[in-house]
Amino acid sequence: MNESSRRRPVTIKDLASQLGIHPSTVSRVLHSEAEVARGAASAETARRVRELARKLEYYPHPQAAGLRTGRTSLLGAIVPRLSDLVLAMMYEGVEEAAAELNYSAFVMNSRDDPGEQRRKTEIMLARRVDGLIFGDAHLDGTLMPELDRRGIPFVLMNRRLDGFPSATCDDILGGELVADHLWEKGHRQVAVAAGEAYASTGVDRTSGFVNRWRGLGGDIEPGAVVWSGFDTAGGSQAVETILQTARVMPTAVFAVNDFAAIGAMGALRSRGLTVGQDIAVVGFNDTPIAAQLPIPLSSVRSPMLEIGKAAVQLLRKVLNRESTDSVRLKPDLQVRESSG
Amino acid sequence: MNESSRRRPVTIKDLASQLGIHPSTVSRVLHSEAEVARGAASAETARRVRELARKLEYYPHPQAAGLRTGRTSLLGAIVPRLSDLVLAMMYEGVEEAAAELNYSAFVMNSRDDPGEQRRKTEIMLARRVDGLIFGDAHLDGTLMPELDRRGIPFVLMNRRLDGFPSATCDDILGGELVADHLWEKGHRQVAVAAGEAYASTGVDRTSGFVNRWRGLGGDIEPGAVVWSGFDTAGGSQAVETILQTARVMPTAVFAVNDFAAIGAMGALRSRGLTVGQDIAVVGFNDTPIAAQLPIPLSSVRSPMLEIGKAAVQLLRKVLNRESTDSVRLKPDLQVRESSG
Repeated sequence: MNESSRRRPVTIKDLASQLGIHPSTVSRVLHSEAEVARGAASAETARRVRELARKLEYYPHPQAAGLRTGRTSLLGAIVPRLSDLVLAMMYEGVEEAAAELNYSAFVMNSRDDPGEQRRKTEIMLARRVDGLIFGDAHLDGTLMPELDRRGIPFVLMNRRLDGFPSATCDDILGGELVADHLWEKGHRQVAVAAGEAYASTGVDRTSGFVNRWRGLGGDIEPGAVVWSGFDTAGGSQAVETILQTARVMPTAVFAVNDFAAIGAMGALRSRGLTVGQDIAVVGFNDTPIAAQLPIPLSSVRSPMLEIGKAAVQLLRKVLNRESTDSVRLKPDLQVRESSG
Repeated sequence: MNESSRRRPVTIKDLASQLGIHPSTVSRVLHSEAEVARGAASAETARRVRELARKLEYYPHPQAAGLRTGRTSLLGAIVPRLSDLVLAMMYEGVEEAAAELNYSAFVMNSRDDPGEQRRKTEIMLARRVDGLIFGDAHLDGTLMPELDRRGIPFVLMNRRLDGFPSATCDDILGGELVADHLWEKGHRQVAVAAGEAYASTGVDRTSGFVNRWRGLGGDIEPGAVVWSGFDTAGGSQAVETILQTARVMPTAVFAVNDFAAIGAMGALRSRGLTVGQDIAVVGFNDTPIAAQLPIPLSSVRSPMLEIGKAAVQLLRKVLNRESTDSVRLKPDLQVRESSG
């Protein structure tokens, strides 16, 4: 592109001279986290700095900022796919929390492919991100331990991995809530579309459900728990498998993801079963679609936006070398017609 | 972060010396677009270069690449929200096509807020992107003409804006297909959840529908076309408004977005109407959920992934100063139970 055709960017010096204050004051007001910024100047001065920066359309030059602070104020997020609404909403939380810290965030898809996870990670490191947020950790993955050895700051979101800080929903509790609900409704034959075996979300929601179910005195038929994709196709295939292999027909299906639940509803319907009457279905995440479905879907609400924000707070602690504890946010069950 | 704890990155020189060939050859093989790369070395040499680069985990240093080529090989995309599945799928197309050109892409949300569009644009320019792809153009916006004056390379995706290259669905044709279908089904009283007035998608799909409907000899009742959000809440509110204000009860509703259509279905259902029997509903985009819904949704299929890929091809032409024509990809209507 023709650089010369671009207007010269406004600098910290420009702002400082117009305001008649020291550039370092302007810099701290505009580039520091809220607390530091408050200490840097009077509220009135800070207001004038921000106002002029807005008026003259000042934007920090990240490379320069990097040279000054040793940081680029850039966070990288890697998710399986943004077409999974759950990850898209968590990323909105990441963006919001990053902006509050004067960071900017960007995101890439790994499609849950280990090679892509690695490739996208190296691209982000080449872009000199200060730290990484992974929404696609694999329980059997080798990437996280390697990044840890290389001293690269990162946290996990959405999926946990023992030994690394993560912000997730309390997925085990979520599974337990579904077990309690279906048991109270009198169901005794249940099946689970369990998600991918490499994802802690699927594993924890399923084990939470199964363990609580057995604790209540229930049995789980062999072949009643089926690993599945998290999307509509995965849920549909899981139900087909369950209906073909289960010795006893289930009266309720727990799908560990709303989209898998919608796929399950489609498959049950094509078998001539009416969800909510002939068979109960419960999903997970309570995406905005769940309540709007022609047969409203019962679903475990996970605080997706808050999980994204919590991941940024965790990463900030890692960057500041503070101690970090993983965050498990509480879910709650929304009961609707699909299992009412 | 502790830089010193990072392994020294592998360089072009490292690869060249190990292979006993000139660094410029390695560089052209790894950093050029396919055609150039093919000219740079024999297929066998190129294969050996790529193999070693993979083995030693070589990744281009974008700043260095930028200094060498004057480009950073980075594309920035800005969309209203990635939690809109349509934009998330278009972005997957952007990522795929960018990777084929040895570019990397990243994406940010603007929430359709003009201030955010401007802020995110400046952040991306500060990151020295080679070019921008906007999925959130506003028909009444001032940003695009300004960027054009500043000589910044960009293209539009999803939404068009006269005077700028864009890759979109042929939304007018899409609206016409819905009009033809509902007319043939014998409907004469129709209503439209028209989307946002600032988005060409909503405007074109609606005008395509209305003009074709009138061409067929149909009337559109006053108050039967309602601007709405593109999400489930927007579709639900639009139907509430239509049912309250329409003088004659519609027998069919066209929502210009699948999520709005799902919201419309929810609102109709809460009025005791059975979609597909009492009233027809047709959506737009044919997202994967549409076919899986308990009442499968008729929808206009738009090639979302291809639109994203086409946007990258357009931007590449802009960067190469080649002439560009906007791309309108053909939609087709998927008829299902909601309007069958």
